Amino acid sequence: MAENRIYIFDTTLRDGEQVPGCKLNTEQKIEIAHQLEALGVDIIEAGFPISSPGDFKSVEAISRAVKNATVCGLSRAVSKDIETAAAALKYAIRPRIHTGIGTSEMHIKFKLKSTQEAILERSVAAVKLAKSFVEDVEFYAEDAGRTDNEYLARVLEAVIKAGATVLNIPDTTGYCLPEEYGAKIRYLKENVKGIHKAILSTHCHNDLGLATANSIAGIQNGARQIECTINGIGERAGNTSLEEVVMIMRQHPDLAFETGIKTPMIYQTSRLVSERMGMPVQPNKAIVGANAFAHSSGIHQDGVIKKRETYEIINPLDVGVDHSKIVLTARSGRAAVAYRAKNIGYNLTKDQLDKVYAQFLEVADSKKEVDDSDLNHIMAQQKIGVLST
Amino acid sequence: MAENRIYIFDTTLRDGEQVPGCKLNTEQKIEIAHQLEALGVDIIEAGFPISSPGDFKSVEAISRAVKNATVCGLSRAVSKDIETAAAALKYAIRPRIHTGIGTSEMHIKFKLKSTQEAILERSVAAVKLAKSFVEDVEFYAEDAGRTDNEYLARVLEAVIKAGATVLNIPDTTGYCLPEEYGAKIRYLKENVKGIHKAILSTHCHNDLGLATANSIAGIQNGARQIECTINGIGERAGNTSLEEVVMIMRQHPDLAFETGIKTPMIYQTSRLVSERMGMPVQPNKAIVGANAFAHSSGIHQDGVIKKRETYEIINPLDVGVDHSKIVLTARSGRAAVAYRAKNIGYNLTKDQLDKVYAQFLEVADSKKEVDDSDLNHIMAQQKIGVLST
Repeated sequence: MAENRIYIFDTTLRDGEQVPGCKLNTEQKIEIAHQLEALGVDIIEAGFPISSPGDFKSVEAISRAVKNATVCGLSRAVSKDIETAAAALKYAIRPRIHTGIGTSEMHIKFKLKSTQEAILERSVAAVKLAKSFVEDVEFYAEDAGRTDNEYLARVLEAVIKAGATVLNIPDTTGYCLPEEYGAKIRYLKENVKGIHKAILSTHCHNDLGLATANSIAGIQNGARQIECTINGIGERAGNTSLEEVVMIMRQHPDLAFETGIKTPMIYQTSRLVSERMGMPVQPNKAIVGANAFAHSSGIHQDGVIKKRETYEIINPLDVGVDHSKIVLTARSGRAAVAYRAKNIGYNLTKDQLDKVYAQFLEVADSKKEVDDSDLNHIMAQQKIGVLST
Repeated sequence: MAENRIYIFDTTLRDGEQVPGCKLNTEQKIEIAHQLEALGVDIIEAGFPISSPGDFKSVEAISRAVKNATVCGLSRAVSKDIETAAAALKYAIRPRIHTGIGTSEMHIKFKLKSTQEAILERSVAAVKLAKSFVEDVEFYAEDAGRTDNEYLARVLEAVIKAGATVLNIPDTTGYCLPEEYGAKIRYLKENVKGIHKAILSTHCHNDLGLATANSIAGIQNGARQIECTINGIGERAGNTSLEEVVMIMRQHPDLAFETGIKTPMIYQTSRLVSERMGMPVQPNKAIVGANAFAHSSGIHQDGVIKKRETYEIINPLDVGVDHSKIVLTARSGRAAVAYRAKNIGYNLTKDQLDKVYAQFLEVADSKKEVDDSDLNHIMAQQKIGVLST
């Protein structure tokens, strides 16, 4: 695999699905897993098998359904969790067990009520146990974002020796700035013995709106797997958005990263996840929001009509959206009104456009959006017929 | 003013309001302007006066209503625009005219069909005209993100000489990576003669999900004004979210930046803008989304119950949200069930919790969220009374 190939680890069905209101049944999870596989995701985190009998059943069913992607199950660094994950993954062609424990002082002291040495031992034991079931074992150092780098490096060195193939460095609370998170990944890349035997992974939360930037900083500093979700769903303010990191890599070829994602399937995947989970995507969401390719100000509309690239860096077709939209509002200029009028059959002279535009502004000041029927009404009042020039 | 004071320039009523479906009437705009002033915003961009008679009227009304914040009106580098903006701002105590033009090759060639020299002259003429009306003139170099740095520096040098007090460097298409955008600001800070006489401003769009990170990179490299909107609304995928950049500065005191924002008013301002504009905020939106302080996985709930800071970096009260939520789903553990049961009056023994938890998982696998009435039903079936020890 090329040195700059980035693995996309999708956790929509685990971190995404554990969100209030997002619960899916097994059938829906299989449907989404099939969609994720078609999208070209490398690893599908299918659930947290010990958490409930329903979740176990879903991970097992997804393991049977998925053919190409790796199927991953989450566990704590607890024997029962790991054994249950292994059982749920029994039918997977490419199974991965994801296990780990909190490594920050905050987690060790207040949540786990333990010590650094004891946590290191539990980490090694967990990886060894997981390794007895599957070849591919990912270790997460929970709250790595707030974990002392030197201790973190010691833990990772030990779990690599125990057989871990992937090392997940979560910014669990979404606290890091991009340069801090990037520096942490770089420190690990440079200081953990045996690091070449494993893949470093990002797992960034969006509490401060920085998940996407942190993930990109991670791969720029040596990580080669990004954990993310469709629409950026996930615990609290969510995870890194798959669509954002993938399109950053695509739109910035100078970064020289590659993924296996078929970007024209992004939009349909976003809609499927949003509908099945009942989780709305706000109109101003990057890449997949309803307005992501809509233009309403006069200045922008004029530019886009002359040349799309003046205001659009992404061709909507590249993410499966079939057109950019010219929406008429009180901020629209003459060019947009003439353009939309032409679309519905009116070829206006300059004088006609002056009159139509004056009336258009009155209508537009009184309602949010002027649609084609409003335009037809204005044309009738101005006594302008279809193709009148 | 301290060297690290960052001015917050809110463009909710201009860039935000020009979005499909977001149109407000004058009364609603005044209501939001009052809220923004109370929130502590330094500059309110109130509209684009030339764009329609309704917009002119709104900018004029906001100019009369606002007492402390600067009120700003947008214009193109066109005499009629600037004169109209000046007229609309007549009653403002602190008026600012925002004028400018596209400076990238893409904009000059395809949208403006002009040359670099002609655009430089138009820029200077626009600033001079604006300066004849008001002292405070902000110049925007549209599509600065894709503008050649050397040419951009020449334009800025010329407009500073013409009297510009603020220089807006928009990443109009949301294309830049944080390190690129930061490097551009640093280049200007180091290479534009007379730059100390003006304030550099960021204006970042979120097409790739990087607006917040780019704005922070901007101030780390010398910008001292951030243009942003409530809930990150704005053209296409929107602008930088005010709540995100403000909370990053607050949660990272090591950055040593200050703003005048009263953060406990953030949540109510977010609700007001969302309701008046009919623009939903997705549940996983950072800071202001419905789930931003909700915890549903067992691991996280257990941590938060033991110590809030294990999974929450922001105290919800700091942004005006009155509590974090422990939501019961199939991913919840014993600790969360015991916690919520105690909240409604059941003090469970270990044996009782085992039984209740087993039945809870059955219920949770069959529905998205388990509420207090479900818990009461489980207690009744297990014959457990309130405060039964």
